[in-house]
Amino acid sequence: MLEFKKWFETGGDKEAAQTYEAIKTQQVSEEVGFYDLPVNQEVLLRQIEDFCAGNTLIKHNRLKDLVVVGIGGSSLGTRAVDDLLRFSKNRNIINIHFLENLDPIYLLDILKCIEFEKALFLVVSKSGTTVETISLAKYLIDYVKKRSLIRKYKDHVAVITDGDSPLHRLGKKLQLECFEIPKNVGGRFSVLSSVGLVPLAILGYDLRRFLNGAKRLRECFFEQKHNHAIFEKASFYAKNGANINVLFSYSSLFESFNKWYIQLWGESLGKLDRAHNRVGLTPVGLIGSIDQHSFLQLIVQGPRDKTVTFIKLKHFDIPITVPKMELEFLQKTDFANGYSLQNVINAQCDATMESVIEQNVPTDLIEINRLDEESVGYLIYYYELLTAVTGEYLRINTYDQPGVEAGKVKLQEILLNQTNR
Amino acid sequence: MLEFKKWFETGGDKEAAQTYEAIKTQQVSEEVGFYDLPVNQEVLLRQIEDFCAGNTLIKHNRLKDLVVVGIGGSSLGTRAVDDLLRFSKNRNIINIHFLENLDPIYLLDILKCIEFEKALFLVVSKSGTTVETISLAKYLIDYVKKRSLIRKYKDHVAVITDGDSPLHRLGKKLQLECFEIPKNVGGRFSVLSSVGLVPLAILGYDLRRFLNGAKRLRECFFEQKHNHAIFEKASFYAKNGANINVLFSYSSLFESFNKWYIQLWGESLGKLDRAHNRVGLTPVGLIGSIDQHSFLQLIVQGPRDKTVTFIKLKHFDIPITVPKMELEFLQKTDFANGYSLQNVINAQCDATMESVIEQNVPTDLIEINRLDEESVGYLIYYYELLTAVTGEYLRINTYDQPGVEAGKVKLQEILLNQTNR
Repeated sequence: MLEFKKWFETGGDKEAAQTYEAIKTQQVSEEVGFYDLPVNQEVLLRQIEDFCAGNTLIKHNRLKDLVVVGIGGSSLGTRAVDDLLRFSKNRNIINIHFLENLDPIYLLDILKCIEFEKALFLVVSKSGTTVETISLAKYLIDYVKKRSLIRKYKDHVAVITDGDSPLHRLGKKLQLECFEIPKNVGGRFSVLSSVGLVPLAILGYDLRRFLNGAKRLRECFFEQKHNHAIFEKASFYAKNGANINVLFSYSSLFESFNKWYIQLWGESLGKLDRAHNRVGLTPVGLIGSIDQHSFLQLIVQGPRDKTVTFIKLKHFDIPITVPKMELEFLQKTDFANGYSLQNVINAQCDATMESVIEQNVPTDLIEINRLDEESVGYLIYYYELLTAVTGEYLRINTYDQPGVEAGKVKLQEILLNQTNR
Repeated sequence: MLEFKKWFETGGDKEAAQTYEAIKTQQVSEEVGFYDLPVNQEVLLRQIEDFCAGNTLIKHNRLKDLVVVGIGGSSLGTRAVDDLLRFSKNRNIINIHFLENLDPIYLLDILKCIEFEKALFLVVSKSGTTVETISLAKYLIDYVKKRSLIRKYKDHVAVITDGDSPLHRLGKKLQLECFEIPKNVGGRFSVLSSVGLVPLAILGYDLRRFLNGAKRLRECFFEQKHNHAIFEKASFYAKNGANINVLFSYSSLFESFNKWYIQLWGESLGKLDRAHNRVGLTPVGLIGSIDQHSFLQLIVQGPRDKTVTFIKLKHFDIPITVPKMELEFLQKTDFANGYSLQNVINAQCDATMESVIEQNVPTDLIEINRLDEESVGYLIYYYELLTAVTGEYLRINTYDQPGVEAGKVKLQEILLNQTNR
């Protein structure tokens, strides 16, 4: 399903066993919840099935616009999975929109695409008090009321939030469907929880296959059968000093996955460690071959402060070929004639990889056989595990984000000091 | 129009005068062409006007799909400008598509949106032999022929390329409209040349105002009136050791601008210097407030290897307000009630900026009064100048990309060695 190769030596790692034990303890003690999401969700799956069977829009195939109101971990994972799988046969013909930013131009642009009477809004916030999400929800309530766009809220709104959050209490009071996020699952690790599963189910994806992909890796990992060099890679990332970690994905479908990776990696691993040193690894997401014409030059000739992971899709399953066409003056480009686009883009990946390896840039490759629920679930879980293990090697708390709290307090101060409300 | 502030000390800079002289020499000798694009294009502007007046689709308002076939510098600049301005009154109601990647899934997805009889294709390649672009063009020719979708190529295709490139020769032979890219203007510095101007004119933007914005900065810069601390910033970036340069733009409209910046900065400044040392600055593009929930944690608590430039838009010109609505249990979020979204997003920018400055991360701010052709032209030219000056301080050739050539050769080898053509 997925294959892993690497072209750098990681050396002996005396800490691997003890790092595994630390992870295992987090899992068994349920201190960290994402580890068990692949195996622990029958109750949720039944709730989702019941919701889909009972919601008038969904059951009568009248749903046209699914709107996720949520920012950061509340939207990135769903978007990543849907963008990878949106051409698969399971995908329903439903538009999905993400309302996340308080940019008014962008907000109006999305609102004008939505048919409210055929729209379902998922309000997603782990804490239940994310200011962007709740402010957007307030605006939507006001917008809908003024225009009498929705009759029964119950058919058009559901919430996804922590079990006892303020949003959960409000949702319950308004008799909206409420999906809970397990308390021990952080926002950026939540795509395999209700945060991702609810919208992905509505879009038509097979959740059991999605979770099953993650479960396959989970079993291998916790039964210590194999782990695709997660410990070796994590140890290398934490200790080698090449602190910019590039993910170079060879398909335009990975655009949102790259963003999900950037949040997961950057927000988890940029921290003060237990000795109060600033540590952190900087994620960069690239798309091949496009970014061969952009960032690649910097990787090849720039400072040796980067690692590169290539992602290659073996089967695009679309037989488009470069025609065997000789255009006058342009014979120089004929070497691609007759090859399938899949062949060419994968050869571009191989060629770029070779030239990066030649420069002694630490390089590895993840080959995905084809994109489906199972392989995507596996890939998601792989990156979550890699992040968790790397965090252990860095001796940090992978799951908090104390650095962004100061800004939230300042925001309130700034607004309260403004007089032009 | 634009205001610039910075919160870090750059120290004395003895090299500023000599760096300015080096830049001035590049400009006067016409070794580097982008400097004079704002003032030097009357011939091109007339060609574009004549083309738009003569093309049957454009003159009869029948153009529905504008398709830019081009990768890297051939598409990023156009996309950046259009995304910033697409809600302005000048913008025609035309869909724009970018065909750039050889990903077959992505290609089919775009093709199915195009009405060929109402479509205009711009084939854009500086060298005229970019393998992605020419392979896509071949596929389009074949696709159109098999389905008899287009009668007269002349009405539906134009090329933008170097004056004597193979593509230019083919275009001339086929009697297509050919727009030239000046030889001394590199791809990533070409948005103010025909590469950007032709599609932007077709979309309805006012090219003279766009160029005029750039011209205003050009005059100040070369008459040494003021330069918004370009030399101080460039010198700091080149010498301070904080080699990750984050652009944190507070509006979703900047998504493509950030990508344009990443190409410009990464590909220009990641090089072997004259003493064969690997140097380079790593660009990162973020969108506020979204990425407060992602990368910000890494900036605040991670290693001190970053600078941050905030971009703030003073006037969004859309009076959307967070309703003065008190939702039960959610009083904690009421501090935003009654404020315009513009107020809140800009307060988010200020709050984030303050917390970053508090951590002694070198920070500066670009405030844009409002988005229009002139301010965007100014902003584009500002970043091009900043890149050029930073390259001088780094003692590199800012305008080549030797590191990506090896991969191109390898691609041919790999394909030639495959037997499954």
